Parts: sequence; C-alpha cells; structure tokens
Amino acid sequence: MPSIEERLTQCRNEIDELDHQLIELLAKRRAVTKRVGDIKSEVGMPIFSPEREASLFAARRVDAKNKGVSEDLIEDLLRRIIQDSYKSQEVKGYRCINPNCKKVVVIGGKGQLGKLFVDLFARSQYEVTTLEKDDWENSDVILSGASLVIVAVPIRLTSATIKKLDQLDKHCILADVTSVKESPLNDMLTVHSGPVVGLHPMFGPDVSGLIKQTIIACEGRNPEKYAWLLEQFNVWGATVYAVEASAHDKAMSMVQVMRHFSTIAYGYHLMEEGVDIAQLVDMSSPIYRLELIMVGRLFAQNPILYTDIIFNDPNNIQMMKRFAHRFLELLDDVEKGQKDDFVATFNGVSEWFGDYASSFLAESKSLLLKAKEL
Amino acid sequence: MPSIEERLTQCRNEIDELDHQLIELLAKRRAVTKRVGDIKSEVGMPIFSPEREASLFAARRVDAKNKGVSEDLIEDLLRRIIQDSYKSQEVKGYRCINPNCKKVVVIGGKGQLGKLFVDLFARSQYEVTTLEKDDWENSDVILSGASLVIVAVPIRLTSATIKKLDQLDKHCILADVTSVKESPLNDMLTVHSGPVVGLHPMFGPDVSGLIKQTIIACEGRNPEKYAWLLEQFNVWGATVYAVEASAHDKAMSMVQVMRHFSTIAYGYHLMEEGVDIAQLVDMSSPIYRLELIMVGRLFAQNPILYTDIIFNDPNNIQMMKRFAHRFLELLDDVEKGQKDDFVATFNGVSEWFGDYASSFLAESKSLLLKAKEL
Repeated sequence: MPSIEERLTQCRNEIDELDHQLIELLAKRRAVTKRVGDIKSEVGMPIFSPEREASLFAARRVDAKNKGVSEDLIEDLLRRIIQDSYKSQEVKGYRCINPNCKKVVVIGGKGQLGKLFVDLFARSQYEVTTLEKDDWENSDVILSGASLVIVAVPIRLTSATIKKLDQLDKHCILADVTSVKESPLNDMLTVHSGPVVGLHPMFGPDVSGLIKQTIIACEGRNPEKYAWLLEQFNVWGATVYAVEASAHDKAMSMVQVMRHFSTIAYGYHLMEEGVDIAQLVDMSSPIYRLELIMVGRLFAQNPILYTDIIFNDPNNIQMMKRFAHRFLELLDDVEKGQKDDFVATFNGVSEWFGDYASSFLAESKSLLLKAKEL
Repeated sequence: MPSIEERLTQCRNEIDELDHQLIELLAKRRAVTKRVGDIKSEVGMPIFSPEREASLFAARRVDAKNKGVSEDLIEDLLRRIIQDSYKSQEVKGYRCINPNCKKVVVIGGKGQLGKLFVDLFARSQYEVTTLEKDDWENSDVILSGASLVIVAVPIRLTSATIKKLDQLDKHCILADVTSVKESPLNDMLTVHSGPVVGLHPMFGPDVSGLIKQTIIACEGRNPEKYAWLLEQFNVWGATVYAVEASAHDKAMSMVQVMRHFSTIAYGYHLMEEGVDIAQLVDMSSPIYRLELIMVGRLFAQNPILYTDIIFNDPNNIQMMKRFAHRFLELLDDVEKGQKDDFVATFNGVSEWFGDYASSFLAESKSLLLKAKEL
C-alpha cells in the first residue's frame, strides 16, 4: 500500500497533467476565436454576439450537468475565456458605417479618453485628426471640412472650448463627451446650427475596448444626421442609451457628485478618527474589504478629476446638504432609541428599491466569491 | 470558397467541440480532487494548502506563457476551478483536534450562524448540543459536563444570556460570537472563572465552508486552555486573527456601524430626492453599478440585524455626528469655491491611505472586470 504522501503526489501529478491539457485547449480555442475575429472584420460584423453567447452558455450548462460538472462553474469559466478572446479580436479593424464622413476632429484627442476615440475611428477607416490646446491658431485649417467634431477636454474647459466652435460647416455634427450634459448641450446648440449630440461614455479611459460598455446619448438637434455615429458605437460593441440631458444630470449628481463627495468625506473621517488602516484591512471580511476598496480606490486617483465634477454645479451643494440633514435626522432616531422609527424608514427604502434590492444582494454575493479569490 | 456563414459555422463547431473537451476535463479533475479530499480526511490533513496553490499558479503561469496563453487567464480559471473543488471536498469530515473535549454546547445553535458551528463540530467528531430559548429550564442538564460553551444569540440578547452562565465547570471554555467584543468579553469574565475567549467570525451564515475565512479572537483568560479551539478553526480552513477587544470594537464601529448607517442614509436620500432607480441602473457604468449594488444589497436584508448593531453602543452616535460635521465642513469648501483646500484635504487622506489606495484601485479594476461579466 503506498503511503499517504505517495498517494497525494500521484493525485497532484494527475492534476498537473490535466491542467497542462487545459492550457493546450485554451491555446487551440484562442486560435479558433482569432479566426472568427478575422472573418468578422473582413465583412465588418460586430465582434460581440449576445445571442450566440447566451445560447452557448445555455447549451454548455446542460452538457455540464449531464457530466456531473457544476453548471455555474462552466458558465463562469466560459465567460472568463470569452472575455479573453475579445482582447485577441479587438486588434482588428472595424466596419466603417459612414464612408461619406470626410474628417473626424477630436478636440483633446491626445487626452486619455480622446485617445481612445481617435484610435477607434482610425481603426474604422475614418480620417481622424486631433486639436490640442497649442493648435488653436491653426484651428481653421484643422476644423475645415470636418464632418464630425468631438469635444473631449476636461470638464472645466468644456464650455470655453465649445464657444470657439462658431465656424463649423452647417452639416458638421458637433458632439461632446463631458460627464454632465445639460449645460454643454445648450452651449453646443447656441454656437452651432447643425446636428448636435451630447455623449457621456460610461467608462474610464482604461477600458481595452467598448464591448458591453454603455454610451449615453442626449439628443440635441437633427438626430437623423448623427444616427450613423451611434450605429458606429454599436459596431465597436457599445450600447447606446438615450436619455434627456436633465434626467442624465440628475442621476449623475447622485452617483458621481454625491457618492464621490461622500466617499471622500468618509476617507477623511477614517483618518481623523485615528483608525489603524492596516489593522482594519487585516480584520476585514470580504464585504468590508470591498467597502474599503471602494473608498481607498478613489484616493489613488487624480483629485482634479473629482474636484472638477464636485465643484461644477452649485445646485449639487443644496442636494448634498439635504443628505447631511437626513443623516442627522436618522441619527436622531438612534440617539433617542427610536428603533421602530428607524426600522420603518429602512423598510420604506427597501420598498422603494423593490426587486433591485434582492437582485443586488444576489449580485453582490457572486461578486464576493470573486473578490475572495483576488 | 465557402461562404462567410459557412466559415463561421465551421469555427463555432470547433469551439463547441473544444468546450465539450473542457467539460470532460473538469469532470476528470474533480474526480481527482475528490480523491485528494478523501485521502486528506483519512488523516485529518487540512483541505486548504496555500503553498501548493501558490506553486501551482506560478508553474501554470509559466506554462501558459510558453503556449501563448494569457497568464492571468489561466490563473483566474484555476482559482475558479479550485474554489469549486473545495465544495466537493467539504462534505467530508474534519480532524478532531481535542478528542478529550467532552461536550460542546452552542447556545443559539439553531440560529443561522450557530448552525454552521454545530455542523462543523459534529463533522469533526465532537459531541455537540444546542441550547435554544425554550431550553433554559433544562439548562443545568444541557450545560453539565460541557468542555466548551459558545454563545451565538442575537447581539441584543448576548449580555442577558451570558449572565445566566454562572454555573459552568471551571475548566469549561466560554466563548461568544457577537460582532462587538469588549462588552461581552467583560460579561463573560465576570460570570465565569475559567478560560474565556471572544470570537467574531468575519463572515455571514451563508458561507459554504470556512476555507479562507477569518475569525477574530480576543483574549479573555487562560489562552493556553483554548488553543486547541483556535487550531480546530485552522483545520476547518479559517485564519484566526488575534486583536485587543477595544481595537476590534473601534475598527468595527467604522466598518459596521458607520458604513452601514451611512449607506442606509444614502438609500433614504436617493428615495427622498425622487431618483428614478430603474433609469439610474440602466445608466450606470460598472463602477456605479457596483456602488448601487453595495447600497441596494443592504435593503434586501433583515433591518433588525443592522438596527441592533447600530443601536448597540451610544458612543457611536458621537462618532457619526463627527462624520456629519466633517461632511458639512468639506461641503463648505465647495460652497466657497475653495478648490485648493479641498484638494489639500484629498491629498492628506491619500497620503494616510498610503500604498493601500493604489492596491485597492488595482483590486477594484480586476473586480470590475468580473462585475461586468455578471
């Protein structure tokens, strides 16, 4: 009878052999998906095919069950593998939706987000030029004959930049990618008489491609003239979400302004309370670690980005004051020991969240499983 | 020359065939890891072997690179596969560290968290009994001869429950699993003259096992007498983190009390501001979706759990008032347009977070990749 150690070594060798086979299999799969990417880019088909993905997951879940393999395991693995395969496919070109488009000018096209769009337009066979802050003396030449001008400068410069664009061709589409929409949209409509659209890409400049990303589009003028642009975003893999500029700004004031500000205040509070951050991290359960990650991650970033957003609209100050007052109002329940009132408020909010609360809880659980693995 | 559609179908058939091979491979791998689990439980070896895992990842990353496969891809896949394999191994029994332990009594052992411990002790060949609220008239019989008594009742009942335990054998270990530690620890030390330890399991009752989970242990009395218990936690896969009760409570007031309270206030604020939650979800980028998940998930849970924690210690009220005042102090910078002051505060907090800020940012990025796939 072999010893325990010998039996374990035997098992481990078998596992290693199976893992080698897994790597071989991944290499083969990637070679095939690369061929798919090549074929698709020949004819400009979108890389991302939601129907194919969904039917593939459903079929493999059934197969897994039949073989006694966890259905969630196979779906999670395939999702991760497919995510990787997109990367290998993204290097290829994209279909050009509007070959009649003469020139695309991205103002701030050397900035982080601008660069991403410049690259995507170039890979879709558009002629694309950038206009940086030192180029304004040649702006007439650069902007002349443009079919599309995209303003991609920092939020504090957006308004002044738009106001300089009063000489565009009347068929030219004017767009911006600022994270607020109402005020730039008004500025664009005032300065330019042609097609106008306000865009808010809901992702940072560090994405590797637009697959499964969202771009918000707020209608300005002549949507039929810029329909091709939104279709081009679809070809790049993005979903376009149309919304009124005012509704966009209200929602963003809650998620961007209020949430960021409150996170900054929480970080400040942790520091001022003399918390031992190392100990806090060591003690944290997965969910608290996730909370800490969401706070700490902000402070690794450029404060100017957040400051500009927070200081941009004075209306947000009143909204945030209302938060502080609601916070103190709830705290008053705690101070007076009014548990029932507190629970009633909690239940009111639960009801307001509706089905989202339970689906968020389920989502957070699968996310925590993944967080634990990091 | 075959048509585009034919060529794509050919590729898709090849992918399906490779995915079938993947499922076969997973079934084989699971059979081997189950054998590993069987061998380990024969001799009571811990299932989780951090060294074996680390060396396995390192070796497979090298192999992947040599085959042109992404190193992160193979590591992510193996982590997910290993997580699944733990589940198949967890059904087996665990080694019993202290066969001399006569009886374990879990007070509240039919509650969610209590049940988890009852199950683990039973699967480690301990005699384990529960004591529920209707059992107190027989408590003398139930507690008699116990080597270990664990208090696992809701936080609002902990103190009263501990005070009833004045008749334990002086060699019996008394422990609790409440999420605050200083006050229950004092209660236990007062009522019982034998070994005492305060425990805080940093996980919810919905975990499938203790592998990679943390249990905080606050020393009470005679740590040498309960060392076997902490070792038993290790056998179950948990990490034991020793800390002073007061330091624990301070840290928890920031992550549990303050963070939960502030999240509840934020949910209340969203509702009161008349936000359209469906629209907010649709518009959200991965990071905002994650923020919303962290808020909404709370409201799918039992308010009593959070209310009890928030109302437990009046000292936290003052601490939370300080947060509200810091929030308004920072908001004052915004109102007065003092960007420089605001940025200076931001930078101060960044410095305080130190290296954690950038590692949290990196962690959040990999997490977002995973969130996008949900």
